[in-house]
Amino acid sequence: MKRVYNFSAGPAVLPVPVLEKAASEMLCYGNSGMSVMEMSHRSKEFKNIIDNAEADLRKLMSIPKNYKVLFLQGGATTQFSMIPLNLFKNKVVDFIHTGAWSKKAIAEAKRYGKVNVLASSEDKNFTYIPNMDNIEISKDADYVHIVQNNTIYGTRITKLPDTKGKILVSDMSSNILSEPINVSDFDLIFAGAQKNIGPAGTTIVIIREDLITDQYQECTPIMLQYKIHADKGSMYNTPPTYGIYICGLVFKHILATGGIEAMYKANLKKANLLYDYLDNSKIFRGTVAKKDRSLMNVTFVSDSEDLNAKFITQAKENNLVNLKGHRSVGGMRASIYNAMPYEGVEALVNFMKKFESENL
Amino acid sequence: MKRVYNFSAGPAVLPVPVLEKAASEMLCYGNSGMSVMEMSHRSKEFKNIIDNAEADLRKLMSIPKNYKVLFLQGGATTQFSMIPLNLFKNKVVDFIHTGAWSKKAIAEAKRYGKVNVLASSEDKNFTYIPNMDNIEISKDADYVHIVQNNTIYGTRITKLPDTKGKILVSDMSSNILSEPINVSDFDLIFAGAQKNIGPAGTTIVIIREDLITDQYQECTPIMLQYKIHADKGSMYNTPPTYGIYICGLVFKHILATGGIEAMYKANLKKANLLYDYLDNSKIFRGTVAKKDRSLMNVTFVSDSEDLNAKFITQAKENNLVNLKGHRSVGGMRASIYNAMPYEGVEALVNFMKKFESENL
Repeated sequence: MKRVYNFSAGPAVLPVPVLEKAASEMLCYGNSGMSVMEMSHRSKEFKNIIDNAEADLRKLMSIPKNYKVLFLQGGATTQFSMIPLNLFKNKVVDFIHTGAWSKKAIAEAKRYGKVNVLASSEDKNFTYIPNMDNIEISKDADYVHIVQNNTIYGTRITKLPDTKGKILVSDMSSNILSEPINVSDFDLIFAGAQKNIGPAGTTIVIIREDLITDQYQECTPIMLQYKIHADKGSMYNTPPTYGIYICGLVFKHILATGGIEAMYKANLKKANLLYDYLDNSKIFRGTVAKKDRSLMNVTFVSDSEDLNAKFITQAKENNLVNLKGHRSVGGMRASIYNAMPYEGVEALVNFMKKFESENL
Repeated sequence: MKRVYNFSAGPAVLPVPVLEKAASEMLCYGNSGMSVMEMSHRSKEFKNIIDNAEADLRKLMSIPKNYKVLFLQGGATTQFSMIPLNLFKNKVVDFIHTGAWSKKAIAEAKRYGKVNVLASSEDKNFTYIPNMDNIEISKDADYVHIVQNNTIYGTRITKLPDTKGKILVSDMSSNILSEPINVSDFDLIFAGAQKNIGPAGTTIVIIREDLITDQYQECTPIMLQYKIHADKGSMYNTPPTYGIYICGLVFKHILATGGIEAMYKANLKKANLLYDYLDNSKIFRGTVAKKDRSLMNVTFVSDSEDLNAKFITQAKENNLVNLKGHRSVGGMRASIYNAMPYEGVEALVNFMKKFESENL
């Protein structure tokens, strides 16, 4: 068995100790005599698993008591409907439009109300984060929606917009747990698990308690009502139990290896190594504005499509896989989430140097 | 490591060879150098996994070509909304009301239209399947909804209602793959995976192609539109990849061990062993009408609450676990899905005999 360095944008690399633990417990979790997969979600064992996962996430992110943590299904895309369906009163939302995922969220919100785009970087194919200093929050906006890290384009919002007291909703699918944030700067945070947290199929929602009401839009399907999930501790119906278990193992692993501060330090070191090389390379260059560079998704190109293709093929032969960029950007993308070790980025940079010397 | 006999109603026992295979591949699937959990859903490897899972399910159930197979999220409960939202035209549905799950589906359908209950066994706490010979299908009904096996009560529909050409929707969450069915007797079949198929968090929908249209109700969230999932081969967004992989392993395991006919034969043998004992027991008795007994969920009681509790406790000490009945029925329930070996039911019956002799 040979592991590769997996730069996939998501689902993505997980910590090896987590996978080893999961493998070792696959036929028998603790003294239960069964796999977590076979366990009733109403059992004491699973109650412990989900309670510990929540407690560990609260500890990691210092989540205030007046925020609920929900383990849901359906990915960020389900949140694109769930958020307007639950938060709309005036049926108006302000968006900061920074890429493919805000685009999809905008399209869905428009089906239920009015969308104002306050700032956009669409003019330059989302290669930067638009200035938000002078945005005018709509008086009747029910909330403001941002995408904190743009997986496809490789940009990252570092300075939050001033929402003038309006609810701030943040899609943190690809940056959650990668850097310290102040949860109370937000009102609703959501993230598909499959980048920094765990397997696809689990969605984490961190929501300020007072936003959870029965004032959802009338047509809201029961599984898209925050209230029912909050009231039932994410167990209104059978939750994705095995996914939640893996998320819990990842949380424990992060806690045991220094928490989010340590992740952030390691992520900066990894990103700097790669960006520094890119800034000095004669054949590769980063695709986004330096000030807006993502710590998680590093997008880069050469000047030739042929060279890009050759690079991706040869990288794969050297066990550096999933480096192909998203079709809307082209070129290459290295996703270097929490679980990507420094050695992986080092191996990538060393290979890039070698490739550069051979192809200059 | 000691495995128990796990009679959980769901999530439930899985085949040991499936768990062993999953454990062995946890850090490296094939030559991929990564776990299935870490794999891009757009990768060739995962495409193979989901395509094979679908092909194997089609083979197992002889699914006709004009039916689509969808791998979704959100459990049966999400289907309770998705079905009316997608199938309603006149906004009328006929229900056969046989338990807690039809009750929930009725409540949700009522939010979007009119529900006619054509037959119900609520008068006797759902201990039987109502006669459907003389039901009057509503002229304006968009579809007829049945729950084929009632997990909580332990009943099973063996004779389908004549829907007079109306669409028949069947919740097969707890009996799918347990007995041969003729898929073309139905128009839409759905099942949460966590009983006979795989881990919680994956939902299988088998739907006749011509029911997949863009004529869903206007407010239908994008993730609740059958069309988008069908058009994108269940990959409109990131599907529950690991869950689908486990489902695929289960399908392969069933094919390798004789297919559904073999499952059915084994299930009959297991159920008969347990029911025969119950019919001859002096302290235990089954709770449902004999003609309507489920092959998957065997519900039984003694005449004393204390004795029930004592039985459940002592059974657990003998590695026979999760035998407590649902609170709405009380007593005991042994769920004996496909993956429960004959030896498990034998061990249960032997223990019951011993318990009976000690407590008569």
